[in-house]
Amino acid sequence: MKNPTLGVCYYPEHWPEANWSDDAQAMVEAGIVWVRIGEFAWSRIEPQPEAFEWEWLDRAIEVLANAGLKIILGTPTATPPRWMLDRWPDMLACDEQGHPRKFGSRRHYCFSHWGYRQEAARITQLMAQRYGHLSHVSAWQVDNEYSCHDTVLSYSLAAQTGFRLWLKERYGDITTLNEAWGNIFWSMEYDRFDQIELPNQTVTEPNPSHVMDFRRYSSDQVVAFNREQTNILKQYSQSPLVHNYMGRITDFDHYEVGEDLDIASWDSYPLGFLEDRIKQPESVKQEYMRQGDPDFQAFHHDLYRAVGKGRWWVMEQQPGPVNWAPFNPAPLPGMVRLWTFEAMAHGAEMVSYFRWRQLPFAQEQMHSGLHRPDGVPTPALAEVKQVFKELNSIDIGSVVEAPVALVFDYESQWSWQVQPQGYREGEPLDYFDMVFHYYSALRKLGLNVDIISPQTTNLSAYKMVIAPGLVTLSKNLSHALQTYSGVVLCGPRSGSKTDNFHIPDDLPPCWPTLKEAGVTVSWVESLRDGVSIPVEGGGHFCHWIEQLELSTSPKHKSHIAINMRRKDGNAALISVDNVYYLAGWPDSELLQRCLLALCDAADIEYTLLPKGLRIRDTQHMQFLFNYSAQPIEYQQINIEPAGVYWHCKNNNN
Amino acid sequence: MKNPTLGVCYYPEHWPEANWSDDAQAMVEAGIVWVRIGEFAWSRIEPQPEAFEWEWLDRAIEVLANAGLKIILGTPTATPPRWMLDRWPDMLACDEQGHPRKFGSRRHYCFSHWGYRQEAARITQLMAQRYGHLSHVSAWQVDNEYSCHDTVLSYSLAAQTGFRLWLKERYGDITTLNEAWGNIFWSMEYDRFDQIELPNQTVTEPNPSHVMDFRRYSSDQVVAFNREQTNILKQYSQSPLVHNYMGRITDFDHYEVGEDLDIASWDSYPLGFLEDRIKQPESVKQEYMRQGDPDFQAFHHDLYRAVGKGRWWVMEQQPGPVNWAPFNPAPLPGMVRLWTFEAMAHGAEMVSYFRWRQLPFAQEQMHSGLHRPDGVPTPALAEVKQVFKELNSIDIGSVVEAPVALVFDYESQWSWQVQPQGYREGEPLDYFDMVFHYYSALRKLGLNVDIISPQTTNLSAYKMVIAPGLVTLSKNLSHALQTYSGVVLCGPRSGSKTDNFHIPDDLPPCWPTLKEAGVTVSWVESLRDGVSIPVEGGGHFCHWIEQLELSTSPKHKSHIAINMRRKDGNAALISVDNVYYLAGWPDSELLQRCLLALCDAADIEYTLLPKGLRIRDTQHMQFLFNYSAQPIEYQQINIEPAGVYWHCKNNNN
Amino acid sequence: MKNPTLGVCYYPEHWPEANWSDDAQAMVEAGIVWVRIGEFAWSRIEPQPEAFEWEWLDRAIEVLANAGLKIILGTPTATPPRWMLDRWPDMLACDEQGHPRKFGSRRHYCFSHWGYRQEAARITQLMAQRYGHLSHVSAWQVDNEYSCHDTVLSYSLAAQTGFRLWLKERYGDITTLNEAWGNIFWSMEYDRFDQIELPNQTVTEPNPSHVMDFRRYSSDQVVAFNREQTNILKQYSQSPLVHNYMGRITDFDHYEVGEDLDIASWDSYPLGFLEDRIKQPESVKQEYMRQGDPDFQAFHHDLYRAVGKGRWWVMEQQPGPVNWAPFNPAPLPGMVRLWTFEAMAHGAEMVSYFRWRQLPFAQEQMHSGLHRPDGVPTPALAEVKQVFKELNSIDIGSVVEAPVALVFDYESQWSWQVQPQGYREGEPLDYFDMVFHYYSALRKLGLNVDIISPQTTNLSAYKMVIAPGLVTLSKNLSHALQTYSGVVLCGPRSGSKTDNFHIPDDLPPCWPTLKEAGVTVSWVESLRDGVSIPVEGGGHFCHWIEQLELSTSPKHKSHIAINMRRKDGNAALISVDNVYYLAGWPDSELLQRCLLALCDAADIEYTLLPKGLRIRDTQHMQFLFNYSAQPIEYQQINIEPAGVYWHCKNNNN
Repeated sequence: MKNPTLGVCYYPEHWPEANWSDDAQAMVEAGIVWVRIGEFAWSRIEPQPEAFEWEWLDRAIEVLANAGLKIILGTPTATPPRWMLDRWPDMLACDEQGHPRKFGSRRHYCFSHWGYRQEAARITQLMAQRYGHLSHVSAWQVDNEYSCHDTVLSYSLAAQTGFRLWLKERYGDITTLNEAWGNIFWSMEYDRFDQIELPNQTVTEPNPSHVMDFRRYSSDQVVAFNREQTNILKQYSQSPLVHNYMGRITDFDHYEVGEDLDIASWDSYPLGFLEDRIKQPESVKQEYMRQGDPDFQAFHHDLYRAVGKGRWWVMEQQPGPVNWAPFNPAPLPGMVRLWTFEAMAHGAEMVSYFRWRQLPFAQEQMHSGLHRPDGVPTPALAEVKQVFKELNSIDIGSVVEAPVALVFDYESQWSWQVQPQGYREGEPLDYFDMVFHYYSALRKLGLNVDIISPQTTNLSAYKMVIAPGLVTLSKNLSHALQTYSGVVLCGPRSGSKTDNFHIPDDLPPCWPTLKEAGVTVSWVESLRDGVSIPVEGGGHFCHWIEQLELSTSPKHKSHIAINMRRKDGNAALISVDNVYYLAGWPDSELLQRCLLALCDAADIEYTLLPKGLRIRDTQHMQFLFNYSAQPIEYQQINIEPAGVYWHCKNNNN
Repeated sequence: MKNPTLGVCYYPEHWPEANWSDDAQAMVEAGIVWVRIGEFAWSRIEPQPEAFEWEWLDRAIEVLANAGLKIILGTPTATPPRWMLDRWPDMLACDEQGHPRKFGSRRHYCFSHWGYRQEAARITQLMAQRYGHLSHVSAWQVDNEYSCHDTVLSYSLAAQTGFRLWLKERYGDITTLNEAWGNIFWSMEYDRFDQIELPNQTVTEPNPSHVMDFRRYSSDQVVAFNREQTNILKQYSQSPLVHNYMGRITDFDHYEVGEDLDIASWDSYPLGFLEDRIKQPESVKQEYMRQGDPDFQAFHHDLYRAVGKGRWWVMEQQPGPVNWAPFNPAPLPGMVRLWTFEAMAHGAEMVSYFRWRQLPFAQEQMHSGLHRPDGVPTPALAEVKQVFKELNSIDIGSVVEAPVALVFDYESQWSWQVQPQGYREGEPLDYFDMVFHYYSALRKLGLNVDIISPQTTNLSAYKMVIAPGLVTLSKNLSHALQTYSGVVLCGPRSGSKTDNFHIPDDLPPCWPTLKEAGVTVSWVESLRDGVSIPVEGGGHFCHWIEQLELSTSPKHKSHIAINMRRKDGNAALISVDNVYYLAGWPDSELLQRCLLALCDAADIEYTLLPKGLRIRDTQHMQFLFNYSAQPIEYQQINIEPAGVYWHCKNNNN
Repeated sequence: MKNPTLGVCYYPEHWPEANWSDDAQAMVEAGIVWVRIGEFAWSRIEPQPEAFEWEWLDRAIEVLANAGLKIILGTPTATPPRWMLDRWPDMLACDEQGHPRKFGSRRHYCFSHWGYRQEAARITQLMAQRYGHLSHVSAWQVDNEYSCHDTVLSYSLAAQTGFRLWLKERYGDITTLNEAWGNIFWSMEYDRFDQIELPNQTVTEPNPSHVMDFRRYSSDQVVAFNREQTNILKQYSQSPLVHNYMGRITDFDHYEVGEDLDIASWDSYPLGFLEDRIKQPESVKQEYMRQGDPDFQAFHHDLYRAVGKGRWWVMEQQPGPVNWAPFNPAPLPGMVRLWTFEAMAHGAEMVSYFRWRQLPFAQEQMHSGLHRPDGVPTPALAEVKQVFKELNSIDIGSVVEAPVALVFDYESQWSWQVQPQGYREGEPLDYFDMVFHYYSALRKLGLNVDIISPQTTNLSAYKMVIAPGLVTLSKNLSHALQTYSGVVLCGPRSGSKTDNFHIPDDLPPCWPTLKEAGVTVSWVESLRDGVSIPVEGGGHFCHWIEQLELSTSPKHKSHIAINMRRKDGNAALISVDNVYYLAGWPDSELLQRCLLALCDAADIEYTLLPKGLRIRDTQHMQFLFNYSAQPIEYQQINIEPAGVYWHCKNNNN
């Protein structure tokens, strides 16, 4: 197994051509193998419509290649030049109020706009024709951070037209749609597809089936947009195709986009994400201000390993303070190294830093890089060099077989958003939050986790499958579960909606084993912040509880066990053979109790880790990461703040 | 006196026709007498313009009638079908930014749109012609929940045109309007009525007189819209006309709409309202999470008894968790019964539950009913049956004569909104909040209260009249007060504006007795949260205080008493003969002190009730309601949580 | 030195002509010398286009003049009449969503609209021609409160057109602009000026250089608008020209507008500002609820002394409760007097009260005056009369030479807004807050402070110059600093951007002495609320810290001193000769420690004042102001709440 490699993001168009060669040389000296270029350079490649200036890019590729670097070439479709709007004035996405989201930054296009999709295909074709045969163009990045800045949902005319065609394709005739959506309610029935508008700005909430289809339609446009490019690139290049996903972006189905890629990658900004995208108490945010959440990166590593079908990269790794979060502190010394090794321990084939040198102008001028704008290296560069050196002395090894699979499903994310039914600290109850809560609890037990797609067909590798909040169960997963003999944990809201977003005729949970055994969710309740429902033995439910009705018929009774009860007597955790249902949103204590019980049932070894410590195994190595700002002693090992410790599992474990 | 009856809301169009008969039979067995249907069924009655399908509704009415049920038939004007927009594309209401509020839910019409008003009259006429003669159509509901989802104030072109005509009608010529509004200020004078725009999106706050007239205009459109339907229905049917008002909806004058109805009704969702519409501390919201606020339902019961001129119903009673509040818990066992008896003790002739069976699709799929979507009864049904059984063993009796009248005035609500002058927990000071604060304090003294209209002409039935925050006094009420000898309490802001929203020439309070005696409000102050002004003897003012100037002339002096003083020496509560003025917004302690003093003055008996207990009398019965989650002992009576206790007043009291 | 005089704002058009003479007489009796009129009277001067009614104004001026009053005549351009919109329907400003900000209040014009600018010039010309020669028209006020209600930034078509022309003027060709803005980033390059839109509604944040130029453009329009009027007025009148600025308004450059005026003035509403515009803890807001912030007024006094090049007034002084703040309490007795003397001690030549009599209608009907709407004097009038009387017995004296200059710069305000990089209690980090934090700390040391423009060319009068957060250093100030030998304090963000909003090539701080000595800001960090970085010896940084790199070359080393260190060892306060750099946002303790150290270095005497006490000297007098609600004893002097104490410096100090 080859060790992972390092990379960097570079913008030759931002720097004098005279410096390119020195920069390339310095990259190689720092141990960098991959260099990503080109993804925002359209206005320099095609400064006027159909008038091209390829030569500078030819030379940049040549200089970098000559230094021995492998090039990741980006298609520049995330930043169409200003003249594109003269051609297609209606290509902009529109916000929920219908206002166009104007030129002047990036991602200023609506995925539904056919004119822009032709333009994106055209520039991709031209780049592929010109560079596809070059051996040093060793990978292609398609577009950049789909959905960043909330750019998937667009309320434009193009989206309205596209949505109507998509609905016609899906339902065939309007009567079928009316029935599927239940439009008889409130006399919402349509006579023709061209009467259907986008589900924004309705008087009160729109039909959830209407919204859910719009979410699916919108995701499909991203998949199609991406596929139009990958189909072209595959004609001209043998190099792997990559997209760089962004952290906690859920408005399109990453697995589906991943189907058309060879490698998944993501952009990892631990400090920015902690401030911007994670629900944690103030005290936790303060504690991890310079380290990032101890589980957020690992979650995405494991997610994109699934999206990339095993092959994945970190395309952009935060090297210092960024510019875009509400608060932008610097990482603790050592964190850049820690983040890098953590990615590698989770199977990253490559970790690439954003960016080689901080740019002194425009939007990201306060975003640090491996060098300051004056060319002086930042502390991150020394950490990169250290990682490069250390990589010579260890063999990180291939991905371990995890005992636990955790399902993450984009459709369930949309379902919870469409119908949250409750709030938490002023925001709608969120599926990502729930899954991440489980992920974090599993990691605190020292477990290796695989995140799996809801379309997974084979679960036999796992001792335990965990699927919290999975609103709709795919045929594939349902089939796989029917023959699975390991421990399964589901609930709440599991199998609670049909594909049309109806409550199933025989009520939830529509879940193998449970339904047959006569388990029914009688009703659900959302709870205000501050209210919690105690469970016998310790821990509470919060935010969400469900009332379970358990069949008392003789044929069912012997199968059903009530494993935990609420103090009010109601069932909290039940099981039917190997399948467990947790009837609510557990707090940390209850969740840990459940997971410990299930680990015992599944014969999974675990260890209660000290606060801030995380473990990840590869096939033959074990890595310990100290995410806290204090030294940790664990099993006679002392690990400094931001420290990484590794050992060979056969010897030490 | 006949006992009240029970009802239910039912949607035959949602269920297979084969089930109607069984449903009807089950209703009757549950003790249900009334069934409301049809109010959202327009797209099934008239699926294409002028093409009708009445037959299914004919059959539904027949099946229900044959089972012995009385039918409340709704006009379907709250949900015009989608094709209506092909006819009248500009019929939608517009929000404050001028964006149309689109099709896709309900109430998607602007009250000012003449085209839609013709359509509403047309369908009403057709329904009245077809069903008005049927004896089993025992009541008509006009439209559904006027103003729900903030649908009275519309900033559409239709509203602008209508407003200009209304102003022309009101003022005659533009000079009169300019003077009435004081448009000389800031050079806001108009030359022509057609220069006047709606008071949205002005640079800074618009003229309050301008806004006040727009509020009146908007309310008048609801009254006119409703009257257009009631005028038609009265031509074809002898059955009573009803509208179902919604809790804490104040954007139109309910009394005025009530003038055209035979029975007022309202939709009572105690748990949804607690989360969504009531300002209470977090701890109170947690304490009453499964019971609702102990006074909010009673307030509306007493309000709609006034609106209905004595005749009123609960048209929709919450039976379990709903879907639309931020948090949606289930009621404590027994609460559905408690809410029902409480309504009846306040004089409801009928209590109807929403809905017979939970619908598994569309917007309200998470709104529970008396049955689950799979047809299994919910706990609420057993409580309904218990109520039905108990109604056989008691005679609830007719409405008691209350000793206290509390004025609630929609124009004052608008006045406070137009000019709040202060905030409370981030929201403008609110008239409803103040009146409800008084109502709640009166109820904690065990008092029966009548809410009365500001147009009331006869007060002689009451020992005490309370009118907090009444900004403008009607001629009727002013006249009634002049001859009234009971105790009157008013203030703050009482009589502080003319009809044109000017400060009166001789300053507030423009109030009988007070003004003549030389009482003047010199200035008012709003106070930030956390600041309170102590009053000698206990309690504080918060939010609002007034500086009173008391005439020292000999002819006035002997009439004026300073009943309470602020600790800074200023008058807090004063009286002139029987008329009291409280110069601020009292906290609970001060309010109770004032009310106790006034009860003594008015010779009203009261009792300090334990927390969570409420009392309501009928002519011969007394009902005790335990709104708390703990048992309460009161006068040797033990009442369990959610418990109702009653006794005959002559025997036990 | 003549003592300052008193004035009042009066609206003859609001009151019966019969009363004018009595009002004028009463003004004179109260000691009032100046009366401001006319600034909102356009609809009465020109009720129809080109049809004038000057006569009432002629008579009003005559009546007031005959009483001996000096008249400040306002141009009425802040309130164009409604018919103006019939002429120029597109003259309205647009908000950030592009919605026109409609007629119905005031300031309903876009500064970029050439049509309206012609109209404003036309009415100014006519007024100047008619009244410019009158000796009793003793001053002119141009427009009213520029920028109030957020009216400088407009996203209208007029603004877009104007901005493009302004950019063409500034940059000459589009390539220069693309380079200046760094538009190569994200392919944002333009081909033509007419492709550039306003920087609103972009997908994510727009280019900060783009925004910064729009801020400059917008400020320039105010300057030009004002200049168009002053140029006209100067042709017809010898009287001084004034504008009344509003508190904490920063969207245009007040110094530049001031260049065209003879006298600066501002509108001082201490209680309104405390609630509306000052970031202070809840406890402080409660403590000063009836007094206002102890430093906010003084800050503006000192600011407008600079803007007016020594000559300044208070044009509108709050006399009682106002109507426009979230909370509107009454001042503590004595505060109107205190505010007046405080202004005079800071050099105000005139203090004018808003308004003579409270108006009983329209938007400001709840705004108190020197009389109630019924004509009865308010408590403020007695305080005004007392001031008038006291002015006879003291000689306030001319402005003292302050030892400390504090730079306040509008461009830096925009720079921080364009790129805050961090938040504080949910709002972007703000330059005004930082400068005011310093101002307040200086005042707590009993110091007299001059606020100076960033274009100041001569600093020799000062012992110390303080310039926190000054993002860009003007050539003038840079030049002045190079020869300045007093103590200088700067940082953080000092000299951190070029004029084009780039990071300087050799990194910040671009500041005389520091850069040459090899001081470099390596990186900056913003910190979340609740996180603070302790400094050795006491105090903390919060919100913002900077990492300093100090040259270790022999030629620099001996010049650089590290005066304070963070507890983590990093430099906190450094100095190179007389220039100090504070590397972060200090809390109050750290700030005071720094200032004490610098005062010692600069040989400035200070005194630690008791809480709520403030001192201000004139040439020969010292004034003590007790802003607290408790009596204060200071140096054997007892000062009651809201009390003012003065003594002759030569005798008592």
